[in-house]
Amino acid sequence: MDLLNIKDPSFLKGLTIPELESLSSDVRQFLIEKLSVTGGHIGPNLGVVELTIALHTCFDSPKDKLIWDVGHQSYVHKILTGRACQFDTLRQFKGLCGFPKMVESEHDVWETGHSSTSLSAAMGMAIARDIKKEKSYIVPIIGDGALTGGMALEALNHIGHEKKNMIVILNDNEMSIAPNVGALHSVLGRLRTAGKYNWVKDEMEYILKKIPAVGGKLASTAERVKDSLKYLFVSGMFFEELGFTYLGPVDGHNYEDLFENFKYAKKTEGPVLLHVITKKGKGYNPAETDKTGTWHGTGPYKIETGDFVKPATSAPPAWSSLVSETVRKLARKDERIVAITPAMPVGSKLEGFASEFPERMYDVGIAEQHATTVAAGLATQGMKPFLAIYSTFLQRAYDQVVHDICRQNLNVFIGIDRAGLVGADGETHQGVFDIAFLRHIPNMVLMMPKDENEGQHMVSTAIHYEKGPIAMRFPRGNGIGVPMDENYKNIPIGTWEILKEGDDVAILTFGTTIPMAFEAAAILEKEGINVKIVNARFIKPLDEKILAGILDANIPILTIEEAVLQGGFGSAVLEYANEHRYLSANIERMGIPDQFIEHGNVDKLLDEIGLTTESAVEKIKKLAKLKVKRV
Amino acid sequence: MDLLNIKDPSFLKGLTIPELESLSSDVRQFLIEKLSVTGGHIGPNLGVVELTIALHTCFDSPKDKLIWDVGHQSYVHKILTGRACQFDTLRQFKGLCGFPKMVESEHDVWETGHSSTSLSAAMGMAIARDIKKEKSYIVPIIGDGALTGGMALEALNHIGHEKKNMIVILNDNEMSIAPNVGALHSVLGRLRTAGKYNWVKDEMEYILKKIPAVGGKLASTAERVKDSLKYLFVSGMFFEELGFTYLGPVDGHNYEDLFENFKYAKKTEGPVLLHVITKKGKGYNPAETDKTGTWHGTGPYKIETGDFVKPATSAPPAWSSLVSETVRKLARKDERIVAITPAMPVGSKLEGFASEFPERMYDVGIAEQHATTVAAGLATQGMKPFLAIYSTFLQRAYDQVVHDICRQNLNVFIGIDRAGLVGADGETHQGVFDIAFLRHIPNMVLMMPKDENEGQHMVSTAIHYEKGPIAMRFPRGNGIGVPMDENYKNIPIGTWEILKEGDDVAILTFGTTIPMAFEAAAILEKEGINVKIVNARFIKPLDEKILAGILDANIPILTIEEAVLQGGFGSAVLEYANEHRYLSANIERMGIPDQFIEHGNVDKLLDEIGLTTESAVEKIKKLAKLKVKRV
Repeated sequence: MDLLNIKDPSFLKGLTIPELESLSSDVRQFLIEKLSVTGGHIGPNLGVVELTIALHTCFDSPKDKLIWDVGHQSYVHKILTGRACQFDTLRQFKGLCGFPKMVESEHDVWETGHSSTSLSAAMGMAIARDIKKEKSYIVPIIGDGALTGGMALEALNHIGHEKKNMIVILNDNEMSIAPNVGALHSVLGRLRTAGKYNWVKDEMEYILKKIPAVGGKLASTAERVKDSLKYLFVSGMFFEELGFTYLGPVDGHNYEDLFENFKYAKKTEGPVLLHVITKKGKGYNPAETDKTGTWHGTGPYKIETGDFVKPATSAPPAWSSLVSETVRKLARKDERIVAITPAMPVGSKLEGFASEFPERMYDVGIAEQHATTVAAGLATQGMKPFLAIYSTFLQRAYDQVVHDICRQNLNVFIGIDRAGLVGADGETHQGVFDIAFLRHIPNMVLMMPKDENEGQHMVSTAIHYEKGPIAMRFPRGNGIGVPMDENYKNIPIGTWEILKEGDDVAILTFGTTIPMAFEAAAILEKEGINVKIVNARFIKPLDEKILAGILDANIPILTIEEAVLQGGFGSAVLEYANEHRYLSANIERMGIPDQFIEHGNVDKLLDEIGLTTESAVEKIKKLAKLKVKRV
Repeated sequence: MDLLNIKDPSFLKGLTIPELESLSSDVRQFLIEKLSVTGGHIGPNLGVVELTIALHTCFDSPKDKLIWDVGHQSYVHKILTGRACQFDTLRQFKGLCGFPKMVESEHDVWETGHSSTSLSAAMGMAIARDIKKEKSYIVPIIGDGALTGGMALEALNHIGHEKKNMIVILNDNEMSIAPNVGALHSVLGRLRTAGKYNWVKDEMEYILKKIPAVGGKLASTAERVKDSLKYLFVSGMFFEELGFTYLGPVDGHNYEDLFENFKYAKKTEGPVLLHVITKKGKGYNPAETDKTGTWHGTGPYKIETGDFVKPATSAPPAWSSLVSETVRKLARKDERIVAITPAMPVGSKLEGFASEFPERMYDVGIAEQHATTVAAGLATQGMKPFLAIYSTFLQRAYDQVVHDICRQNLNVFIGIDRAGLVGADGETHQGVFDIAFLRHIPNMVLMMPKDENEGQHMVSTAIHYEKGPIAMRFPRGNGIGVPMDENYKNIPIGTWEILKEGDDVAILTFGTTIPMAFEAAAILEKEGINVKIVNARFIKPLDEKILAGILDANIPILTIEEAVLQGGFGSAVLEYANEHRYLSANIERMGIPDQFIEHGNVDKLLDEIGLTTESAVEKIKKLAKLKVKRV
């Protein structure tokens, strides 16, 4: 059928199973074609085609609440709720969001991006429903990976206790983003091999009935019973212990099985956990056979071959690679180094480290809080942990950074990946708060390199730093292609670098916005304005010598940062000038305004919020004039 | 024995069980006497007397690592490690800390205060031990309440997977701070009644052997077997499923049982969970019979009667009461209001609300992340959640505030209790970061009232606010005793209040530091300096009209806040002046410097960091002079 004509999911109710299967096939084809152009989360969405169609067939969205955990698997849901026509704009500026978004559709009842929030949201909705005495089904859909996140476990515990009606769909694809980690995973594995719970119960009764009455054989019979007991233990008892009715496992690609179980779940009082087995990437061979998570989220690809469409020129190293590979090199000489990642060994490019130092690499699963405090625990024993974490996910470990790492002043190196705007993943993933939420924590050192060469030196500096926590933020994407030094240098903590002299206005900036400073300076040069450019690579502590020098010389300052303005680096400069009573200091700040930044091409986003060379040029002109006036 | 003579725990190895029992009795007597004067966490410590002594007898601290979760139960550990003589100074300025503290003793290998970190720390230490090929036992001691915290569950999952040697002591006293919540609690309850795991296994075999051979009776026999199966299910299978060897339950006040189980645990490969049942408050009747958590942590009390030593005069209402009771009153007319607390119904004084609106009050256990997102989920359904949470614990829900509440701009009212310095609980509990970690989040409204009357109006304002998240911070302790209005008033969002006119210098401050402003103004009045005092009750958004007025009039400004300076309210004022190009603005900021603040009397702490009237007076004098010079 033509998916573009779908307005809402009501048409599904009249379809036969063969018709639904034909629809599944159309949806798959649509996704494979559209995403080959735009890129996107192909693997997770191909895995939930039947599950999503079945949910929309058996439940009445939006009266019934479908809550997609993480949300990157909501494409099929978007197609069924009238958004197929927008897929050409997927994850692009002003285009269709890659995650559920309330403004797009009344069927998006909960917005996500970060993992493991759906059960808590569902609990809130269930409480509201019951207070309002309404009737509706609340159906969070959560992956096996997301289930390891602490807040999902907090929620399971509370939901099991409160016994609210709720149907939790456990979408078990044996893989979160990277292959799954943790004891829960092996519980799920045992469930997968154990077959249906009800079947096991029947089996148990059958065996008991066949127990022979002959004295001498009783012991071995007891053994047989105990074997079948094992089935009972592994058959959902974990969830039953927590207070859920466990159903499944169900084949998530079989409509009949899904319908039957939904029907049963709807009739069940209290919380139900319906265990659905799906295959990530189902129906597209390169994605279906992927073992490493490469096809979790991708850029454009060639449909026939599954080859990724790469940039024409060979790109400089990806930042994640640069950082992880530098740590790996240092780890050859330094046995204290241990790498920790919360489920991002691929994203953080730690595969090389893992294969060379398997006993010094820990993927703890989606568990940022635990990851952070494991790092702290390691540091108490004289180790040098490297916590590889995305800026946006470090938000979830704020308290652990404060309470466990910084308060105990432990030697942890936090590599903050995807700092700044990340583009297509949008507002849930922008790494723009880290400066504001880390800068005020005592003992923290926070830095950002100007290029990949300085990046490797900073990694080395961080590894050798012995006075407490140190964090390096670095952007998504690739370096800028500078030559790399052979040997690592130590960068003295709290030192900036003057990249270009000039005495009319000084730009203080770091990382990705340094090129903008050079562009602005070149334009201004022609108008006779000489701009000093300072690589303010330490966001905390500031280089007080350079900063005081500029302030003493009464040179106006423009700070530029790809991070929120409130409480950011520019504010640190204001605070310094204020504290040291530079009352006539003339400082302007550029950065991200007080709003969430949506998805889209980073340059377009920067343009939208005025974080551009043009804007810098304008501001500097005014600053330079003011300087003349004030002198 | 004289506890003051204890230097380290080595003396324990030679003692007989009767001698250990006599020691337990001495320790209890010591705690009851000392804490009757200083106050402290009496209940938890009386509960772990035998457990702590047994641990120090069977393990070799500090080579073996005893890791106290939360840490308020470490008093016995402190006595055994040579700190009995410091108990007169417990929780006082420069005195013995109420939590483990590395600088106090080499036996304190991990510092805490917040819950649920011990397992992650233990995992880090276990990884370090194994990489270094050292031999030692790693023994986290975690309460049943702390086990519901997400990061503890993340850790259990990871530890069960990795199979590192570790002995987790589950100190199960059937009560966290408030009576326990959650499905895990009922699992533990079933374990408590089920008896020893090994015993149950034997029982099972016995029953199987007795299965009668008569055909007609088989069904009922199967029933009997299934009943005993239940024992198996509840006998630690939850933890066994996660990959732990489960031992227990053990009587935590019986040395023989403890020794026997420690011995077995030491011999066991992989992670062990040893389930120890203790009685909070054991040996002191008022604490032992407490059902509500009153004796968890107390002030001074009379030993004979268990009466608390109260302040001589009748105090104004406690802030927690004021806020929760106001919400309760509003809830009578507003069915949308639902209260959520993460395990603090008593601390947050929500008992009244709970008894009046049991179906609209949810204690979710120690689970701040879940609590926060439940609130968000409620708000999506048009409810008005009141999230009652301490400032320091809100740190653990930073990401949920960003990602779930503020990003979706949901109508959640966050009541931030214990904001500012909290005193005796010390550096893990000071509520000094909230302004810095909330102010930069888009959509957030943040306020603090000057007194309890304004407090009730603010609560009403927050409940009626419909444009997104709104938070009110309020201090630990009591109001200041102002008359209370009968009817609630709406305070327009983002409006300040001029409390005193004056045009030499303006003090902008809020909450607890307003009295300081009046004291300083009175002193300065005598020297002819007229101080304007502004109740800057909205920290975000600022009152731009009043602020611009002061800046336009070129009146120097002193900001005062009981919160960290970096990224704080003063910085918000600097940012405003900077953004609006008040280049000659003369602003000084007072607040908490860039360091962690230890425990002690709040006034002494304020004195220590220079957040005093005297300091304000000095600063204002300079500002006033400068004003004269600049005009």
